[in-house]
Order: sequence, then structure tokens, then C-alpha cells
Amino acid sequence: MPGNTFGSRFKITTWGESHGKAIGVVIDGCPAGLALDEQDIQIYLDRRKPGQTKYSTPRREDDQVEILSGVFEGKTTGTPISLIVYNKTARSRDYSEIAGYYRPGHADYTFQEKYGFRDYRGGGRTSGRETIGRVAAGAIAAKILSELGIHIMAYTKSIGPVTVDSRQMDFDEIRNNPLCMPNAQAASQAADFLDECMKHKDSAGGLIECRITGLIPGIGEPVFDKLDASLARAILSIGAVKGFEIGDGFKAAGLTGSTHNDAFAPGTPDPVKRTNHSGGVLGGLSDGAEIVFRAAIKPTPSIAKTQQTVNAHGEAIEISIGGRHDPVIVPRAVVVVESMAALTVLDLVFDNMTARMDGIRCFYSVSE
Amino acid sequence: MPGNTFGSRFKITTWGESHGKAIGVVIDGCPAGLALDEQDIQIYLDRRKPGQTKYSTPRREDDQVEILSGVFEGKTTGTPISLIVYNKTARSRDYSEIAGYYRPGHADYTFQEKYGFRDYRGGGRTSGRETIGRVAAGAIAAKILSELGIHIMAYTKSIGPVTVDSRQMDFDEIRNNPLCMPNAQAASQAADFLDECMKHKDSAGGLIECRITGLIPGIGEPVFDKLDASLARAILSIGAVKGFEIGDGFKAAGLTGSTHNDAFAPGTPDPVKRTNHSGGVLGGLSDGAEIVFRAAIKPTPSIAKTQQTVNAHGEAIEISIGGRHDPVIVPRAVVVVESMAALTVLDLVFDNMTARMDGIRCFYSVSE
Amino acid sequence: MPGNTFGSRFKITTWGESHGKAIGVVIDGCPAGLALDEQDIQIYLDRRKPGQTKYSTPRREDDQVEILSGVFEGKTTGTPISLIVYNKTARSRDYSEIAGYYRPGHADYTFQEKYGFRDYRGGGRTSGRETIGRVAAGAIAAKILSELGIHIMAYTKSIGPVTVDSRQMDFDEIRNNPLCMPNAQAASQAADFLDECMKHKDSAGGLIECRITGLIPGIGEPVFDKLDASLARAILSIGAVKGFEIGDGFKAAGLTGSTHNDAFAPGTPDPVKRTNHSGGVLGGLSDGAEIVFRAAIKPTPSIAKTQQTVNAHGEAIEISIGGRHDPVIVPRAVVVVESMAALTVLDLVFDNMTARMDGIRCFYSVSE
Amino acid sequence: MPGNTFGSRFKITTWGESHGKAIGVVIDGCPAGLALDEQDIQIYLDRRKPGQTKYSTPRREDDQVEILSGVFEGKTTGTPISLIVYNKTARSRDYSEIAGYYRPGHADYTFQEKYGFRDYRGGGRTSGRETIGRVAAGAIAAKILSELGIHIMAYTKSIGPVTVDSRQMDFDEIRNNPLCMPNAQAASQAADFLDECMKHKDSAGGLIECRITGLIPGIGEPVFDKLDASLARAILSIGAVKGFEIGDGFKAAGLTGSTHNDAFAPGTPDPVKRTNHSGGVLGGLSDGAEIVFRAAIKPTPSIAKTQQTVNAHGEAIEISIGGRHDPVIVPRAVVVVESMAALTVLDLVFDNMTARMDGIRCFYSVSE
Repeated sequence: MPGNTFGSRFKITTWGESHGKAIGVVIDGCPAGLALDEQDIQIYLDRRKPGQTKYSTPRREDDQVEILSGVFEGKTTGTPISLIVYNKTARSRDYSEIAGYYRPGHADYTFQEKYGFRDYRGGGRTSGRETIGRVAAGAIAAKILSELGIHIMAYTKSIGPVTVDSRQMDFDEIRNNPLCMPNAQAASQAADFLDECMKHKDSAGGLIECRITGLIPGIGEPVFDKLDASLARAILSIGAVKGFEIGDGFKAAGLTGSTHNDAFAPGTPDPVKRTNHSGGVLGGLSDGAEIVFRAAIKPTPSIAKTQQTVNAHGEAIEISIGGRHDPVIVPRAVVVVESMAALTVLDLVFDNMTARMDGIRCFYSVSE
Repeated sequence: MPGNTFGSRFKITTWGESHGKAIGVVIDGCPAGLALDEQDIQIYLDRRKPGQTKYSTPRREDDQVEILSGVFEGKTTGTPISLIVYNKTARSRDYSEIAGYYRPGHADYTFQEKYGFRDYRGGGRTSGRETIGRVAAGAIAAKILSELGIHIMAYTKSIGPVTVDSRQMDFDEIRNNPLCMPNAQAASQAADFLDECMKHKDSAGGLIECRITGLIPGIGEPVFDKLDASLARAILSIGAVKGFEIGDGFKAAGLTGSTHNDAFAPGTPDPVKRTNHSGGVLGGLSDGAEIVFRAAIKPTPSIAKTQQTVNAHGEAIEISIGGRHDPVIVPRAVVVVESMAALTVLDLVFDNMTARMDGIRCFYSVSE
Repeated sequence: MPGNTFGSRFKITTWGESHGKAIGVVIDGCPAGLALDEQDIQIYLDRRKPGQTKYSTPRREDDQVEILSGVFEGKTTGTPISLIVYNKTARSRDYSEIAGYYRPGHADYTFQEKYGFRDYRGGGRTSGRETIGRVAAGAIAAKILSELGIHIMAYTKSIGPVTVDSRQMDFDEIRNNPLCMPNAQAASQAADFLDECMKHKDSAGGLIECRITGLIPGIGEPVFDKLDASLARAILSIGAVKGFEIGDGFKAAGLTGSTHNDAFAPGTPDPVKRTNHSGGVLGGLSDGAEIVFRAAIKPTPSIAKTQQTVNAHGEAIEISIGGRHDPVIVPRAVVVVESMAALTVLDLVFDNMTARMDGIRCFYSVSE
Repeated sequence: MPGNTFGSRFKITTWGESHGKAIGVVIDGCPAGLALDEQDIQIYLDRRKPGQTKYSTPRREDDQVEILSGVFEGKTTGTPISLIVYNKTARSRDYSEIAGYYRPGHADYTFQEKYGFRDYRGGGRTSGRETIGRVAAGAIAAKILSELGIHIMAYTKSIGPVTVDSRQMDFDEIRNNPLCMPNAQAASQAADFLDECMKHKDSAGGLIECRITGLIPGIGEPVFDKLDASLARAILSIGAVKGFEIGDGFKAAGLTGSTHNDAFAPGTPDPVKRTNHSGGVLGGLSDGAEIVFRAAIKPTPSIAKTQQTVNAHGEAIEISIGGRHDPVIVPRAVVVVESMAALTVLDLVFDNMTARMDGIRCFYSVSE
């Protein structure tokens, strides 16, 4: 499987390089009858747009999405939805230098080894611009989910050493600060930390946390396509992610059964859990509680600080990566995490529709 | 996708419940001409067998694998390999009690909600016995990989609060202690900790670390089927896993670019990295360094300590789970992690064979 | 894709060789709550059993199916259903001769070339016994479909030169004669023709026709997964099939638009077609009329008549295939055609459940 | 599976409607290092272009392909190749009439039923323009195959009652006549027949035959992904195809084993078949002989002759389809058949690369 397709029923295929003509995505399996226009998608794309604050690259990426197919008279038709974003920015820069060496922390070397050849302009397909297709498709998945009462919200949990305390989260604050943190004071401290990083020509990483509400119990497939396993793959497939955990995650390894197990309590109409150490998943299926997971994002690899590497001839050289780059990509990755979560959950919601004979009988008799 | 199939080219489908007649796996896509007998597989199964120490359930699971198809005259034929393990243990126990309530930390409730109905005997399909199929198939994948010079080794990194120091690892020790730890002293401390847990009718979790050597650079597919994303899904699909990280993992979120980037240095025949913060993956492709990842395992949910839950009528009750259960499943999960890693890597090694035109031309002209 | 898996949502994986220990199938994606026992499946298997008439091989294949997993208290649980049929017949025969040459019309040569090695005992995986897995799974698919009001019926349309006239079909007759023909007189003539074939140590082919009723309009997916394209693949995947046509099929190539188009007429609740040249499919989707397709089955390749071939050393030899073989496989293939049709249609019925937003909204709100 | 993706390793996803902004395809899995420019693809697209003769619609479809991604410095990079063709033709026509009724022989009714809603402009996604994506991708597949020595050639075998005799084929003639027939005299007779059809406001169907040379033995996967089954699905997925046969096809049903079996004869380096009744496939795998298959194409459903149908209110009406339409689509479908065959064969050639351990060992050791 060549790897640019995600999902089995709500299936997306992304394409495009940083400095190619355009970037896009084809969505196959979007149900007919969803009201959809370009603005629904643009809102999501604007959230990943750089150049909005001093903590992201000042390159202007004026990414306007265009719907090329699959929508007629304002509604989806059930046929593939093709979305395109042209790479408008002038691309005058000379990339011949970058072609000649391998940037540490980047995929230059591995692409060269895999394909014997690479599009070195701005990272080509390995550029963060690759996520445009994910976010554009994720916007549609999220819209469908919201019509079913399922909502997804991600935010910056930490940047470098600055972490938002779980007991002091203000979700309304997320869109108020450029770092997407649910706590104004933490956002301010993180900004100070980033200023320090930039002063030292260095960069930072951080944590993104994501919450999903409204899932009925039983979403996910047992064994290999568990909800948490599917989310892990989706999230790790985002370029800079180095770790994934759900619920108590790595902390769970140090707990005992009696402190980690969530007791059930009577509820209406269904039983509820008294705690949520599991993060909303039991046996790979949603358990009715909120889904909570976290992703670890590595520091931006492009830094102005001098680094050691080798050139195409295998000789040791020193480089300093010019241009201005995001000192931290965490805030821009928040909407990418939401998008991948939406795509994952929607596919599993669709899968779940054939779990029981009574549901199928009901559906088929209604359709007749 | 119903979820019991893993892999696209070396594709396995597992089946079977804890207390059904048998458990098994069908492997489709195993190349012809591999020497294979039941002993190759039994060795792996024996490593996950319980009842070997006081830290695993004393139930005797005398799991003998039988090859039903796909092997002729000691070699694989290229057709599906069907492996079966009969559930021999006498199953006299009365499970009617368990049928009537939801065990905390187990999938009883979520299966009931998804399917409207569940096989409650010993957890049914959600039992740890489900991993028999994974391990049996993983043994074959690992054998193929080892013929290509690729080796996978997992071990217990920590149990509860007892962690093996990375600078004091002795890999030869792993098979010497029942906890699969690469350090005899840590193993002894962990044993003491488990004795305490058992005394308190409680259980423990831990960390498993896995190392893969021998991968050429470029294994993995960009974007959605990255090597690390694929591993994350594979590992999170194991019942008790709550987190996955590669290389520096969650620690990377707190580092700066200059401390996290791995510098390249000249090497023969290929450049090498001076450090391995990335864990052997750049841009989702193997980078020539050792692959290193960790999985967080939750404490065993079956504990004798009294727990609160609800019964099938939605009423609050208190339960104490009888029988003897593993106070920790980490050591038995080590071979499951190795198996899932082997299955993941082999599939991507196969995928990589069509990455370049020159490789395909070469292959096709040799075949003629 | 290694090729032993069929379907994406109701997904089957078959395994087993003619002379291996057993043959079987794993069904993944069967909804929970279907009443199922071994007898439901055995009825189908018995229809493909040989040795029932003089027109099929007198080898006794006492194929008893056993359910190994996925069914609890008489109902499917939603987990994989593993079915096994042990190869009980004594296998004393010496196959070393067959190992040394390539039988014309068989896959001996192509398997040898593909895999460099083959299980030559009774054809191994290329034996007609491979269809046991298909039929066992097909029985379950057909049971689900019948609960939705969808029925599939295949029969022998012709054997050699003897064809049943479309205007003289008596479907009640199909199970009354050993050749599964819907006309007693034609069956008698075909029997005479087969007697002649056998006298000349030769074999015959024929046509199977299949009819599917009860499909609502719109089943099938546009473009590559059309209902007719999916059926064609399913039917051609049966060993001896050399052609597939739907509706007027090849005859359509000689008609004009005005004679081939089916006019629509008012109907209740939906419009109806006045004719059915299309065979029940328009644009790859069911159109509400009966689905009608035909498969061309080649004559049995194993014949006692002397044939020319080459041995493993590439030398020309003459052979006469001993043992008794089916002089025609058409009647035994009837249930295989029905099974493959059932598997195909059920998968597309499941796929169709996410075609529209209103259906999804309805389903999700009911589930809550 | 929503149905707009074809292939597992060389995987294409097509999108676009007749009267949308554009039509296109994304190709994922094209190996790196293939020389490719737009002209390679345009040549194929020009072969399906209408308006070239009086036997195809005079609508001018000036379909210029543009490569949006996946090619750098004239070579494929291994990343997805996105191809787009803008729908340039002025689309001033009023389609409101067509929106109100169901055209016989078209998918208007079935799309309406499936999706509850349809893009009625020019047939939307069900238009023949949908094949643009297939042909654009097929051009690339064919280029790769030709580098491996595999060649695919299709042509018009018959139009209405005019059939080219197999013994009088002149393949050089195919591109000399507008009907793509390999015999000038037959082409002239077919032209006369089409003139008659047009005079009667009617249309015609026909047969396309396709030949594939250069395949080594063993291409195809046993059981469900047989070469012939895969071709059948690929070909039937083309809008107007009603039948598929390989080798002797339907004629085989009337032959005996002794007349249908192909005898093997000694050959260098491999044995050869003395005849080719099988059409180049044994047991679903290529047998070293030429692959020969045929597709039955129905007459164009859009005819000027008066037809009966119902309108959106379910009332009986009479219609005459205005505008000029292809009186026969067979010649334009020739390149679509070639394209689908190329896509099918290439995928199976890639699949075959992991059939044997020795091939894998060799490949992996060369890569290191």
C-alpha cells in the first residue's frame, strides 16, 4: 500500500509537494446530501495557516481551497470530492544548496535512499504543507460528525517546559491566544520561552491533547482496528509526532489495577464510569466516556544554529538553515490532530453500522 | 473493515475465543520456499505461555500449534498457512455470574453495547488468548526477517516503579529471569514489588521496549503508512497497551531542536547518525539506525480486591474477581510486541520492493 | 494482495489444499445476532458434494463442517467465524507420477513457475476442493440476504450442445435432476450427451445462469465497484469459468439502442422497467429488476483420453489421466456460483448503508 | 469501499463529473525514476477524444492533461501523481429538462435512488468523461509495462453485425480507420452499417478484443485475484460493458476437454502450449501464451428515436434525446480497455514480486 490513502469507507487520498503546482485531496465515500461549501473547509485551513503570529513562519501561504467535484447545488452528491489548493507563493528561491546535503531531523536522507532521487524544493512531499489535504478532508469529516453530535477539540497542552495544569483549563481561551493553549497565563509563559528559543536560534516541541465527545459506546473494531490503535496510527502519521497515549497513558504503567480501573456506576439510560483513567476506550471500543489522548510533538528540526551533517558526496560539513521557520509547530498542528481524529472516528462510526443484524434489518426495511 | 485482519501483503487473519473450540490464524502472502515446521512457531508460543512462574496465572495452557495448510515437504508453498491451537483446558467453571455484570477495566460493557450480546466465557474474543494468533503468525514473519538480516528484540523495561537503566542493560539476561528484564537486579526488585501487589490483591503495569536492527534506510511509506505510525497502530492494537513512543518519544516534546536533531556523520557505505534521538525513523522511513520504541502496559484489570460496578440490570454491586490472574502481564506481552513489530516491518519491507523503477526492472529481468 | 481474501465488510479468507489436513474459511464482519448452526452451512456443502450421481466423481468426500469460533448459544457474536472441513478420505494414492509432468488445462505449470515449487497432490490449492471455503461462507451470506428478502438462485443453463430454452424453465425441476437443469427433458438429453462423452474418455462444459431477486435499486458502487463488475470478478474467480455476461450480455453487442434500452413505466411505489435487457443493472447499480447473469464453464480438463504434454525435464510425453473425474463440473459449480453471488451482493448491500446522510443520521440516532 | 479507487499497489483514484470544473485522477504507488511528461499521457487521452470522425459526437472536448504533482525534473518521484483535465467546453445548455425524467439505458434512475439526489448535467459522474482519469492513469501503467517488455493492444472486433475474421487481422490497420478495426474492408462495412443506424436515429454496439504479450508465466494471484477475474472486473467496470470472456470464452462451454485443453510442447527456455484456447491463463495465472480477451459493448443508450419513460412525478412520458451523441462508443472505448488492462496487469506484476523467498532475498541483498 503506497501510503497516501487513509480510511476505508470515508477514504481520503492526498497529493502534492511543497513547491509543486498545487496540493490537494480526493475524498471518496462522503455520503450524499451533506450541505457543503468552500467556506466550511476554509475555516479549517485558516487555522493551520502560518504567518499569523511571530511564532510561526512569516511566509505567506494564502491557501484558498477550491472544490472541483462532488458537490452540486450546495450538497454533496456521493461522488468523489476533489479539493485543490494552488501553491501561489512566488518560488524564486534557489534550492540547489539544499539539494546537496541532508538536513538533520528531516527526511532528506531517507527519501534519497528510498527513491534514489528526491524533490528537494522546500522538502517536497515531506513538507508540512502535506497536511493541507488532511485538514481539508478533516473539515468535512468533522462536519458530518457534528451532525451526529460528535465533537472533537484539540489544544496545546505544553510547549517546552510550560504545561497547562489539567485542573486549570479554560477551553474558551484556546482560540484567544496564538499558541492555542487553554490557559492565558501558560500561553504567556510559553511565549516567553519561545522568545528565548528564537534568540538562541533554536526551536521547541510540545504536547497536544485532544478530546472527543458524543460517541456512543461500541465504536471501534476489536483486535487490530481498535479505536485507540487507529487513532495512534492516524496521529503518528503526522510528521513531527513521536508519541501517543490515551487516558492515563504512560502514567498507567506505574499504577496498580485498583487505582487504574474505572468503576462503573448506575446511570440513565446507560451505566457510567466514575473515573476516566481509560481515556474513553475499553477493549478498543468507545466506552461512553470522553475520549482523551495526547501526542508528543518534536521540536522543529529547521534551526538557524550551526549543525553538523554530510553532503551528497558523504563529506562532513556544517550548515545553518537560513530563512525563517516556525520555532514551534505545535499550535499549527492542533487542527491537524483534530482533522486526523475526525477522519479516524468517522470511518469507525461507518464501520459500526454493520455490527448487528437488527440494525441492518432495520436499515434495509427503511430503505425499501 | 471488521478488524481481524492485519497487513496488506503479508496478511494475517486471526480468530477464536478464550473458551471456544480453538484459536487460530490464517497467513496469506507468505512467500513460497521458506523452510517451516511447527517447532518454529511453537518456540514463540511457548514464550507467551502462562503458568511458568508465580507471576503469571497458574492455569495450564498447553498450547500446541498445528499447521493445517500451506506447507508441503517442509517448505511454504505460497498458499495460505492455517494455524490452529485447540483450547484443551477443561472448562468446567460456571461463568453465569460473570455474565451478569461488567468487570471494571475489561471490555464486557463495550462488547455488550456494540453487539447487543457477548460470549462472556473467559472474556471470549477479548481474552489475552486472542494474541495466540498474532504470535503464531509473528513467528513466521520474524523467521523471514531474520533471513534478510533483520532482528527484533523486546524486553521488559519497567514494572511498576522499577525501571531498568538504559546504561545498565544486559540483553543476555532477558531470558534468564521470569520477568524478561535485561538486568538481574532490577528483575529481583520488580519481583519484590509484585509480591507486595499480590499481597494486597492488586496488580501492576509496566513498560516494554523493542529494538529492531538490520533495516536498510527507506523502509516505511510516507504520509499515512509511516513506519512509526504503522508500529504505533500495531502495538496499540494489543489489548492492554495505553501508549506508544519512538526514540526520545514524549521526552522529545521538552527538548529543543539542537538537542533533539541527530547530526549526520560520514560513514561507509552510507552516512551514519551520531546520535539516535529519532529512534531510527525520519519522515516515517527507517534511517539506518536501530529502531527503538516503547509501549506502556496498563495493570492487569482482573484483581481480587473489591471493586464497584453495575450488574446487567443497571444496579450498583460490589465484586471481587476470583480465580488466580496474572498480577502483571508485561512479561508475557513481550513476545506479542515482538510479533506485532515483525508483522509490521515485514509488510513494509514487501511494500518497499516497488519503490523504484530500477529495482522493478532488475527483478522482472531476473525472473524471465 | 495475496488473493485468498474476498470482500471488504463481509470479508472471507479461505485456505487449504486438496490433500492437506483440512480446508476452511474465516468469515470476518458477520453481524452479531444471526441465528446460525452447522446445519445451515452443511446444506450448502452437500449441494457441491461429489459422488451423488454418475456424472460426478465417485470419490466420497464426506465433507462435514465444524464451527470453531464466532457463534455462542446459537447466535453469531460479531467476532470471526472459523469453519473447518477435515480432509478425511484416505490419501494412499501415489502422486509421484503427477509431480513429474504438467497436465494440460490445469495450473500445474503456472504454479510451478510462480512459486518454483508446488503441492502436486490432487492439485493442491488449485483443486476444486478450494471452493469448500467459498460455499461454507456463501451459505452464511445467503442466510443474511434471505432475512433481508434477497434471494439467489442458480442453475445449469446448458451442458455441451443441450440448452434449456428460456421460455421453458421450470425452477422447481432444478433440484429434481442431478444436472440442476430447470427442465426435465433437457436434463435427460444432457445426460445422454454426457454418456457419450464418457464413452469417448472425454468431458463437457456448459453454462450456469443465476438470478437475484429482492434488491432495492441503488445497490453497487459507481465506477470501479459496480455490481456487475464485482459479480464478474467473483464468478471468474471460480476455477473453470471462462466468461461472464449480464442481461443480454454478448448479444447486446449486436443490438441497436432502441432494441436494447429498457423503457421505464409508471409503477408503485417506484417506476418499473418494461423489459430487462440490462439484467437488472444500470450504471453499475441495481435498477430494481431481477439480476440475471451467466457464466461459461470450460470442460473438465482431467480426461482419460491420451494427451500430449511435457515432463519436468521439458521432454515431450503422452499421458492419460487415470482415476475417475467429473465428466462435467457444471452441476457442482451451481452452488459455488450462488455462493459467490451472495458474498458479492452482501458486501455491496453493506457498502450502500453509508450512501446518504439521512440514512446515517437515522441509524446513529436510533443507536443512541 | 466507495468505489473510485482501483488497484492495491499501483493505485488510482478518479474523480470528476461531466459538467464540473475538472476531471482527474491521483496515482499512488508509481515507482520513482520513471521518465514522464504530459505528452506521454496526452497521446492516450487523444485516442479517446470525441469529435474526430462523424461516428463520434462532434462536441469538441479539448482535453489537455496537466501534471500537478509527483514528477520532478522529468522523472516520477515516488509520491502521488495528480493529473487534471479542466472541463473547458462552454456549458451553456439548459439541463433542467433532463433533470425531470429518467433516460432509458442510463443511470439517472439508479443514482437518484441510491443518493436521493443527482448531478443531472450531462450525466454527472456517470458520463463517459469519467473514463478520462482511467486513461490518463492507464497511460502511465502502460509505459511502465512497456519498459518491462509487456505490451497491450486492443481493437474493435465487431460493430453490430460486422465482425473482423480472426484469420484476416491486420494490426497495422487499427490506427488507419476511425473505427479502430484491424481490417479495412470490415471497417468500411461497419461504417455503412453506422450510417444506416444514424439514419434511423438509432445506435450500435460491438466487441472489443485485447491482446497482452510479454507476461512471464505466473502473473496473477490464485483464488480470488486471478488474472482473468481481475481483468473481468476491470473491464466490466467500464460503463457500457455487458460481458467478458477470455480465450475461447463462451464457446468453451460447448467444447469437450480434448478439444479445449492446450497441449504442452517442449520449448526453450520454457515449455510452450501448442494452442491457446485458454487465452493465456491457467488457474488464474499467466501461462506464457498471449492473453486474449473480449468485451461486449452495448449500443449507445442516447438515441434520437422516441422512447417511453417516466418523469420525476412517476408519470409516463415520451422523449427523444436531443443533441448529437456517439452512434457507437466502441472505437472510443478501445483505449479505455487498454488502460484498464494495463492497470490490472501492472498491479499483479507488482504483487508477484513477493511470491518467492529467493526473489525477496535477492532483492533485499541487492538493496543493501
